[in-house]
Amino acid sequence: MALPLAALLGLALPAQAHEETDAPSPTQIVDEAPREEWVTIPPENLLVMTLAPATDGAELRVVIQLMPEPFSQGWVANIRTLARAEWYDGITVNRVQDNYVVQWGDPNYDNPEADGAAKPLPKGLEEVSESEYTTTLDAAEIEAVRRYFSNAAKPEKPEESVTVWRADPYARAHAFLAGWPVATLDAAPRAWPVHCYGMVGVGRGYSPDTGSGAELYTVIGHAPRHLDRNIALVGRIVEGMEHLSSLPRGSGALGFYTAEEADKRTPILTVRVVSDLPESERLAFEYLSTDSDTFARYAAARANRRDPFFIEPAGGADICNIPVPVRRVVD
Amino acid sequence: MALPLAALLGLALPAQAHEETDAPSPTQIVDEAPREEWVTIPPENLLVMTLAPATDGAELRVVIQLMPEPFSQGWVANIRTLARAEWYDGITVNRVQDNYVVQWGDPNYDNPEADGAAKPLPKGLEEVSESEYTTTLDAAEIEAVRRYFSNAAKPEKPEESVTVWRADPYARAHAFLAGWPVATLDAAPRAWPVHCYGMVGVGRGYSPDTGSGAELYTVIGHAPRHLDRNIALVGRIVEGMEHLSSLPRGSGALGFYTAEEADKRTPILTVRVVSDLPESERLAFEYLSTDSDTFARYAAARANRRDPFFIEPAGGADICNIPVPVRRVVD
Repeated sequence: MALPLAALLGLALPAQAHEETDAPSPTQIVDEAPREEWVTIPPENLLVMTLAPATDGAELRVVIQLMPEPFSQGWVANIRTLARAEWYDGITVNRVQDNYVVQWGDPNYDNPEADGAAKPLPKGLEEVSESEYTTTLDAAEIEAVRRYFSNAAKPEKPEESVTVWRADPYARAHAFLAGWPVATLDAAPRAWPVHCYGMVGVGRGYSPDTGSGAELYTVIGHAPRHLDRNIALVGRIVEGMEHLSSLPRGSGALGFYTAEEADKRTPILTVRVVSDLPESERLAFEYLSTDSDTFARYAAARANRRDPFFIEPAGGADICNIPVPVRRVVD
Repeated sequence: MALPLAALLGLALPAQAHEETDAPSPTQIVDEAPREEWVTIPPENLLVMTLAPATDGAELRVVIQLMPEPFSQGWVANIRTLARAEWYDGITVNRVQDNYVVQWGDPNYDNPEADGAAKPLPKGLEEVSESEYTTTLDAAEIEAVRRYFSNAAKPEKPEESVTVWRADPYARAHAFLAGWPVATLDAAPRAWPVHCYGMVGVGRGYSPDTGSGAELYTVIGHAPRHLDRNIALVGRIVEGMEHLSSLPRGSGALGFYTAEEADKRTPILTVRVVSDLPESERLAFEYLSTDSDTFARYAAARANRRDPFFIEPAGGADICNIPVPVRRVVD
């Protein structure tokens, strides 16, 4: 017997428990994906955010993948503009709300307790419309979503219902498109990215304001899918998530740090677009193509765990419980 | 305009933005529940777990609500036995895996890197069968679940589909029973509690071992619903969750702390059943009856946010995104 619970993810199983005939875990399926199923993330879609070092001096770095077309490109362009103007340098993490979000931005922006003036925004930011919270898919994208549906609709066991597998409480259906989890309506070819753990979104005030991108947050709890179609998603954290999710929670309303606990605000030293870095510093990441055979098998295994720890396969999976595999490319 | 994102939960809205005619937020609905809709949690179903104090000397206390009948009573009885034998005193938090679980137990149990012998378990622990992962409901419980379905099936807006509202990727349907989120199959009157954020479960090795209750974990990320029916749930954290969820993540396999980072293991000083405490120290908690009118309105509002921040109601909600309101009773 392993450490209790050690087998929960089907990793690090002791040899005697893991027979040749055992079903592979989702991780084992991904590990065996052929090289050509991995897709390089363009370096202009990667941001490196460096936080103030840990108390032991360790460097704390968070890597964010920005969304590609067809989603949220107005805000994504703004975020590159803000990063290139070095506007993010010196802002702080201002809000940590348990089971909800970590949020960073200018601590003096619209803050009645501010001890200084708000930082002026750079020129060239676009005002993006609320209509951009959802996207009309083109013919190729609709075809990709249909292909996902038809794969997902094949039950592994005859008694498993397609309805169960595809069920989503927040949409007619969910799918993966170009490496991202999306939800869709059947009736119209519109789709939107969804608020899973680690997704990055754009803080805003009241409608019709949609936010510029100067204020960002990431999800650190159960997927708050009620925010879908109400706020812009622009990316996800692909490395260093633990540096944000383990921050002390704020004791003010909504998890904001109060003026008394201002020393808990983690400083953000720099945010850089990876394509702007000297070649030797350009981190490289890749994701498993969500159109690949391996991804289809991985998603099916997430929905029906048959690796040794499990006794009852679920017969379905929440889209946020099928995280898209992303890995760092090491030379 | 408030602090950006400050309105996300519909709390702390500036007065000028919150008109009389605005739809109430879920929190506002709960705040207006009549006194008689709140149910006192029996003190024998509450555990107080005291952690080693914070670096600033602050006391860190976690309160766990144990499940009532008809769920998991074999393991719940074991946990009371372990607490009364003071067996938990001096164990540690050994595993913190991001977006998954925090787990505590005897650091020397079945640990090849242990620096001491495992702690012997007290007498009187029951060995509980895997069949107890699900529960056959009695007539009154079936009736309660049906009542929930028929309430939940009433769409607020005629165009909202009942199918969407009730959709659950892991079960035929979900409901609330006796204050707990459960999933069910239509065909047989069997139900099981579900792995939402903050739920507490029993670590185990490989099947048919179901765990004694000496090793416990709580969910600190997106609901790992694939564990439902594969592992015993016994309760939920009702206060102090942030003391566990913000712990540093372990760098070993599955988020276990390695031998090199053994100093990160948070000591658990004591675990006590509240009914065993002197009267002056007995904390009291209550939950909003999940059979109440207010709970039905709260759940509907979680599924269709219409408070001022929102522009597009979802038309449904994940059961783990409808947390049962629990509050401390202050004299």
